[in-house]
Amino acid sequence: MMKTGEIENEFLEFVKTISHYEEAVSLLEWDLRTGAPKKGTEQRAEVLGTLSSEIFNLSVSEQMRSFIDRLSAEEVWNDLSEKAQSTVKECKKTLEKFAKIPPEEYKAFVVLTSQAESAWEEAKETADFQAFQPYLEKIVAYNRKYADWIGYQANRYDALLDDFEPGLTVAKVDRVFNRLKEQLVPLVQEINAASSNPETGFLFHHFPAENQRIFSEKVLQAMQYDFDAGRLDTTVHPFAIGLNVNDVRVTTKYDEKDFRTAVFGTIHEGGHALYEQNVSESFAGTPLATGTSMAVHESQSLFWENFVGRSRYFWESFYPELKAQADGQFDDVSLDDFYRGVNTAGPSLIRIEADELTYSLHIIVRYELEKALINEEIEVADLPEAWNNKMEELLGVRPSHDGEGVLQDVHWAGGMFGYFPSYALGYVYAAQLKEGMAKELPHFDELLAKGQLAPVKDWLTKTIHQHGKSKDPAELMTAAAGETMNPEPLLNYLTDKYRSVYNLQL
Amino acid sequence: MMKTGEIENEFLEFVKTISHYEEAVSLLEWDLRTGAPKKGTEQRAEVLGTLSSEIFNLSVSEQMRSFIDRLSAEEVWNDLSEKAQSTVKECKKTLEKFAKIPPEEYKAFVVLTSQAESAWEEAKETADFQAFQPYLEKIVAYNRKYADWIGYQANRYDALLDDFEPGLTVAKVDRVFNRLKEQLVPLVQEINAASSNPETGFLFHHFPAENQRIFSEKVLQAMQYDFDAGRLDTTVHPFAIGLNVNDVRVTTKYDEKDFRTAVFGTIHEGGHALYEQNVSESFAGTPLATGTSMAVHESQSLFWENFVGRSRYFWESFYPELKAQADGQFDDVSLDDFYRGVNTAGPSLIRIEADELTYSLHIIVRYELEKALINEEIEVADLPEAWNNKMEELLGVRPSHDGEGVLQDVHWAGGMFGYFPSYALGYVYAAQLKEGMAKELPHFDELLAKGQLAPVKDWLTKTIHQHGKSKDPAELMTAAAGETMNPEPLLNYLTDKYRSVYNLQL
Repeated sequence: MMKTGEIENEFLEFVKTISHYEEAVSLLEWDLRTGAPKKGTEQRAEVLGTLSSEIFNLSVSEQMRSFIDRLSAEEVWNDLSEKAQSTVKECKKTLEKFAKIPPEEYKAFVVLTSQAESAWEEAKETADFQAFQPYLEKIVAYNRKYADWIGYQANRYDALLDDFEPGLTVAKVDRVFNRLKEQLVPLVQEINAASSNPETGFLFHHFPAENQRIFSEKVLQAMQYDFDAGRLDTTVHPFAIGLNVNDVRVTTKYDEKDFRTAVFGTIHEGGHALYEQNVSESFAGTPLATGTSMAVHESQSLFWENFVGRSRYFWESFYPELKAQADGQFDDVSLDDFYRGVNTAGPSLIRIEADELTYSLHIIVRYELEKALINEEIEVADLPEAWNNKMEELLGVRPSHDGEGVLQDVHWAGGMFGYFPSYALGYVYAAQLKEGMAKELPHFDELLAKGQLAPVKDWLTKTIHQHGKSKDPAELMTAAAGETMNPEPLLNYLTDKYRSVYNLQL
Repeated sequence: MMKTGEIENEFLEFVKTISHYEEAVSLLEWDLRTGAPKKGTEQRAEVLGTLSSEIFNLSVSEQMRSFIDRLSAEEVWNDLSEKAQSTVKECKKTLEKFAKIPPEEYKAFVVLTSQAESAWEEAKETADFQAFQPYLEKIVAYNRKYADWIGYQANRYDALLDDFEPGLTVAKVDRVFNRLKEQLVPLVQEINAASSNPETGFLFHHFPAENQRIFSEKVLQAMQYDFDAGRLDTTVHPFAIGLNVNDVRVTTKYDEKDFRTAVFGTIHEGGHALYEQNVSESFAGTPLATGTSMAVHESQSLFWENFVGRSRYFWESFYPELKAQADGQFDDVSLDDFYRGVNTAGPSLIRIEADELTYSLHIIVRYELEKALINEEIEVADLPEAWNNKMEELLGVRPSHDGEGVLQDVHWAGGMFGYFPSYALGYVYAAQLKEGMAKELPHFDELLAKGQLAPVKDWLTKTIHQHGKSKDPAELMTAAAGETMNPEPLLNYLTDKYRSVYNLQL
């Protein structure tokens, strides 16, 4: 009979093979989004389909099932390392989920979404929703079926939410999002009506892409992003991607008419990358070697983007460097005016360019539409109109075409329904982490003012990064911030900050 | 019972899956050599091992064997399309070869060579052969065993030659290479002793990398390289790689002190890329969708590099453009002096920087060492000394350290023994193709002088490219040049050209 240690090793070898396929898939995707030749896109979609299918097949294989059965037997289980136990749990969860999906449907879906991403890119460019509609209809149909295969208790959309944030339900999201709407919609109106608007004209001067790149790299370095285990490239829709713990890549976009896109975008994606780079190396080659959930992932990117990158203190150290890279556009702009300028807030059309005050409302628009789509309360053909109406209702603005409306995000083309809420929930988490961090780093503001970002990164590595997927969001948040999901810290932060930026009475 | 058409389709679907894995492997390799973060290299080697093993396993699987058996049955075979017949033949050949290799040894070898490439890069940098020696010893040991597994008739090295050029033997190579040595060694000495040496000082001025890139792109475009189905990147050791017919990538290296590296390197790799881009699209997803052999591949790159790129006529159209990109270094250099300057020849140490006259001698050095290594006449530890001696014997120069000697090429680190001869044989083929082309394009020189390279590319597509691997080298060469391998056209060309460049009596 095999010893426990031997079965454990064999199992971990098998799991590592799956991680190898995942690395290949990640690279194929990274490449597709950072410069793969356009004529090769069609075959590339099939390659992604083949490799993703293989991951699927390995994850639900008889071999996997047999490993899980043997390792779960009580006398074996207790002798397993903690890492092996967490890995078995994770594999079991995936197997049970995947086993409910017909393999042919899964492969067709992977091919479909890869083609849909190219179709979306063109449709967005030409603001032609109808060109994208047939793809999106198939994607929505798949997601509805998917929810039914997986199963749910209260709401069909729960099945999709759980994929990105384990245990999340419509009931929980509704509670948090209603609280955000209740306080943010009037706050946005209040800000919008304020008489003391920050100066913003100086933001839109020509800032050469190459200099933006230099500044972006300096900030990433200060954040402790390891360039020997990553790289920075350009893309249309920025993202960060972990191929393995030692290869985590950031992408960004240089808008020469608005440096904020690259600067805050890079800090944001850098926050994601730090999470993936600092997962404990002992988890390499297992499904634990990644972030625990999308919302916790987003808490990292938004923490860096907003609580660091949009803080006045951060710019005390980085403003001189930004000035040095710019073509004179900040010469007559005081630090204070700069700070207020980059924190200008108000209703806008594009999520990824939204300020931190209105950002959650953009997410709530998408959440409410997804929920309605999956529950068949609306159809894909109704989306453009429904989108525009929601934007008007929550933000008071209406897109003039679908390129700046319903077509703006890649997520649906990528097949991801249930993902968007993570963005706002991550923001909620980030504010809670800020309060948790303040207890151990009371001089947080001073550190930022000196450009010393290492202690901030170290605290996040200690509380969040290193654990990878070995702890769930609730465990991590309770240990780091003393409680699970709570929107009040975020609401307090936003109310205080924006009344101050807009010189309103506190 | 299944109809022939149905089995054929099922077989081609199966074969397509293999091509998907191959695309992933090609991308993983391309990425590793164009900027993958160095800390991720170790895991990347394992990923390559896993995917290459999967290709290996599929190629020798029971499923493959059963397809080949069913399709080879006489009543089925005659109903197959020509494409399916060629694919079955190719798959059968691969299966019979792979089936002789122990799978575990194969996987270990893939991992080894991937790690060896990183080790080689460092060893070359520091000219430290001993750091690389343990890797190379394992690689040579594998290649010796490999030759024994595969089998051979006259010489153990024949088994390796056949991998790169089907049917090639030591006997054939010796005959061609001895003829080359016989005529080239004295010709090089004659040139070396010539009194009328071309001016070369103007070659080594500072030429900004970005401008070299612009020029390189223009030349590639003129060559009809399709940038919508490819891209140009930088690397340490330039290469071209086909991911699929619609995604064929070129890499180059910009030496700001010597523009020739990038210019001739890009034309060379562009020649390889044209071959891969112009294989008939009907072969996509089969093993026929690539070059038929390494020597024929090299005939394409060397045709472009030497018969086009180093021709006086080519520079009649491209010299003004080169001048426009340069920082004034050619302002006082006549076209004639430029032509003679870039065609300066003479003994040198580095193969990839060698002129076309001495290039074959660099190859013969490697061929003779490989042959001796595989036949256990020398050992890896003897290599640096043996290398230096051969260089002295054939070229009259001796490296001062191993970085410019035995460590200069990546091939051995990549596990490739038997590959080098293709370079010189490709050159032999290229000269034969030039003679064949002259019959159909008598105004070849004029076309070059006008910068009209499309007819040249079209002739190569018609005679070589489009057929992919569906015809063997002998078939292609006979149809295009009227005979199989013959060194005389190359010897005539080199003798005429270099006596003219060096103003020697003809």
